[in-house]
Amino acid sequence: MTLLDDARRGRVPEIETVAREEGVDPEALRRSVAEGRVVIPRNVAGRARPLGIGKGLRVKVNANVGSSKDRADLDTEVRKARVAVGAGAHTVMDLSTGGDIDAIRRAIIEAVDVPVGTVPIYQAGVRAARESSIVEMTADDMLGGIEAHARDGVDFVTVHCGITMTSVERLQRQGRITGVVSRGGSFLVAWILHNEEENPLYSRFDQLLDIAHEHDLTLSLGDGLRPGSLADSTDRAQVQETLILGELVERSRVAGVQVMVEGPGHIPIHEIEANVRLQKAACRGAPFYVLGPIVTDLAPGYDHITGAIGGTLAAWAGADYLCYVTPTEHLGLPEEEDVKEGVVASLIAAHAADIARGIDLDRDLAMAEARKALDWDRMFHLALDPDKAREMRERCNPEDEDACSMCGDLCALRMVERALEKRSE
Amino acid sequence: MTLLDDARRGRVPEIETVAREEGVDPEALRRSVAEGRVVIPRNVAGRARPLGIGKGLRVKVNANVGSSKDRADLDTEVRKARVAVGAGAHTVMDLSTGGDIDAIRRAIIEAVDVPVGTVPIYQAGVRAARESSIVEMTADDMLGGIEAHARDGVDFVTVHCGITMTSVERLQRQGRITGVVSRGGSFLVAWILHNEEENPLYSRFDQLLDIAHEHDLTLSLGDGLRPGSLADSTDRAQVQETLILGELVERSRVAGVQVMVEGPGHIPIHEIEANVRLQKAACRGAPFYVLGPIVTDLAPGYDHITGAIGGTLAAWAGADYLCYVTPTEHLGLPEEEDVKEGVVASLIAAHAADIARGIDLDRDLAMAEARKALDWDRMFHLALDPDKAREMRERCNPEDEDACSMCGDLCALRMVERALEKRSE
Repeated sequence: MTLLDDARRGRVPEIETVAREEGVDPEALRRSVAEGRVVIPRNVAGRARPLGIGKGLRVKVNANVGSSKDRADLDTEVRKARVAVGAGAHTVMDLSTGGDIDAIRRAIIEAVDVPVGTVPIYQAGVRAARESSIVEMTADDMLGGIEAHARDGVDFVTVHCGITMTSVERLQRQGRITGVVSRGGSFLVAWILHNEEENPLYSRFDQLLDIAHEHDLTLSLGDGLRPGSLADSTDRAQVQETLILGELVERSRVAGVQVMVEGPGHIPIHEIEANVRLQKAACRGAPFYVLGPIVTDLAPGYDHITGAIGGTLAAWAGADYLCYVTPTEHLGLPEEEDVKEGVVASLIAAHAADIARGIDLDRDLAMAEARKALDWDRMFHLALDPDKAREMRERCNPEDEDACSMCGDLCALRMVERALEKRSE
Repeated sequence: MTLLDDARRGRVPEIETVAREEGVDPEALRRSVAEGRVVIPRNVAGRARPLGIGKGLRVKVNANVGSSKDRADLDTEVRKARVAVGAGAHTVMDLSTGGDIDAIRRAIIEAVDVPVGTVPIYQAGVRAARESSIVEMTADDMLGGIEAHARDGVDFVTVHCGITMTSVERLQRQGRITGVVSRGGSFLVAWILHNEEENPLYSRFDQLLDIAHEHDLTLSLGDGLRPGSLADSTDRAQVQETLILGELVERSRVAGVQVMVEGPGHIPIHEIEANVRLQKAACRGAPFYVLGPIVTDLAPGYDHITGAIGGTLAAWAGADYLCYVTPTEHLGLPEEEDVKEGVVASLIAAHAADIARGIDLDRDLAMAEARKALDWDRMFHLALDPDKAREMRERCNPEDEDACSMCGDLCALRMVERALEKRSE
């Protein structure tokens, strides 16, 4: 029995917990889970704190960590995972492709109490590449890899089931500028082209559902054909994949397996709402998990900002879950500081969208009141990143200043307050 | 004769220059200038490169620099102005309130070739405060200060003419959380309350127009009652001020004086479009110059990001000109690095909005092509901040890597390209 099976019969403790934390009605939440509009990714091992993602809940933020061949230190990746959670990330994904991948994954699962996701095809691909070539991966390598991650207690996995012979055909007719930029997507496109066979994650989707059901693994249907540039945004290849993912959402629900859908990527601001609404319609309200989206290609070094702009718009239009983008996106693997910056930027996007839906306004009101009172400790306490706010104030201000160096004794807040006080004396 | 007077009679060289740089029809641009929907702020001294702000043109970015009592070094402020322009700021405003304010202003005007703006009431207020009190400023202090700045060659000035007895009355009835957060606004609110007299910048607006006309000074009608928190957004006090500013726009146009209007501030994302459309309607299409807007109060240390999110939405809705926000906003005066971060964040917002209007798509396309080719030098060249992109790549990558450390030899772009090549062999 999965959490989804259970939710169809009645309330379960995870739903009660999430309802309490989100301040929503537990019965309404149970219905949303039962219908698949909310997921609570949680391996049957039950390690992670229950976290709800989807309709009517706060927008959530994921942080990617993980090694590559060139940077394959376990401790570094565990530290990055801890930094991400410390900064407020709601989930962590381990995308390791270098070093002892099994050990890194297990150490991250051990180190954090939030839901952990992985992309098992990476490890399967790396193994196949070591022995021969990625395109020599077998169906059993792919499915076995997913099962191995599930057994380790992973709560959700990205599976690129929508890369099919049909979507590859559409991709070839598309004439893209930046081809395929999803790593998992590229493995499977190459695999299909080489083997002239259907993607096993699609042709053997029922077997995948059995594995997911056994371990109560939530599926995150990957967008292997997401655009890698504004020029490729919302193209026929990407939309084709979304249509296939929508069908797989329905099959997952029938099988009692929780499922969400991943989305782009690089999108100009005027296409973001359309992307979200298309996904929601085609995938019957499945939670939507977007990467960024990044709203211009021109800002390497600042893609946490381009991603925060796109993330705000996507979440406002209905996306439920934002994958962070760090400043080093398009340049290299992030370090700890980049991870923190990426998480905070995405939290800003998530919160800005929550506000538009009337959620958590009291937090901003409390900050406004602290500002009015020039209560710095309270401001730091309420800030998304108290340490940075405190350091920056210390750097910018003389020690004895109780307003701030922007205005000093010309503080506007004080000037008017005093004038009003005098008048009412 | 001002540039506006001239534009009503025929095309002038400034219009030809701006039309060429923006790739728009010069006659259509002339009409927009003549109608006041575009301004080209340029003191009669003619120092600044002609820059157009308004309808149909690229969104522009301003960077604020300037001293305070606690930080009053001329060289620092000149350096910050140069850093801002080097990073791509289209204009600079000198908001100095400390040290030798005249000398700093003149040095900044000398140092950069972009239009320079000031807020003359700051200096008038500081002088009055040194002698007695800000509320003892005379009308001649205020108007004389504006004239002195105009004589120095300033191209545009913020004047808080919409702080009137009527708007102060509305403010008092509003019951705001964060009162008045505009410095200039607070001077004038305090002045009105203390003196029980009308704001001279409003009661003697004709005299102000004479000064502006003589020096071809563009007026930027300040939003002294802009909200200082989401809780105060779009409140009756702010809207009252906007209505008064709209009337002053019409009087400025009749007088042959170029004019734009300033706007908030702190606005939740779902109110941004309404703010922009209200301003555009009430002010008959005058160029709209917004500060941020900031979309949550919770992110001190990251307000360049909250401002970039709001700036994107505002510009998409029709705002023409974004005043940057730096990471140190709400904490203290920015340093050079903060200035650069603030400019780049605002440029991202401006460009993201331009893209939505079909402007400059070729820049993103060029970057996409450079990425596909893994042509790093070209990517750095096209990046909004080439230095940062280069440094970050060097920090994140081993020297011999020609892809990047995110994927290394698992580069998605390459994988699919090779698979396609093999197939077509």
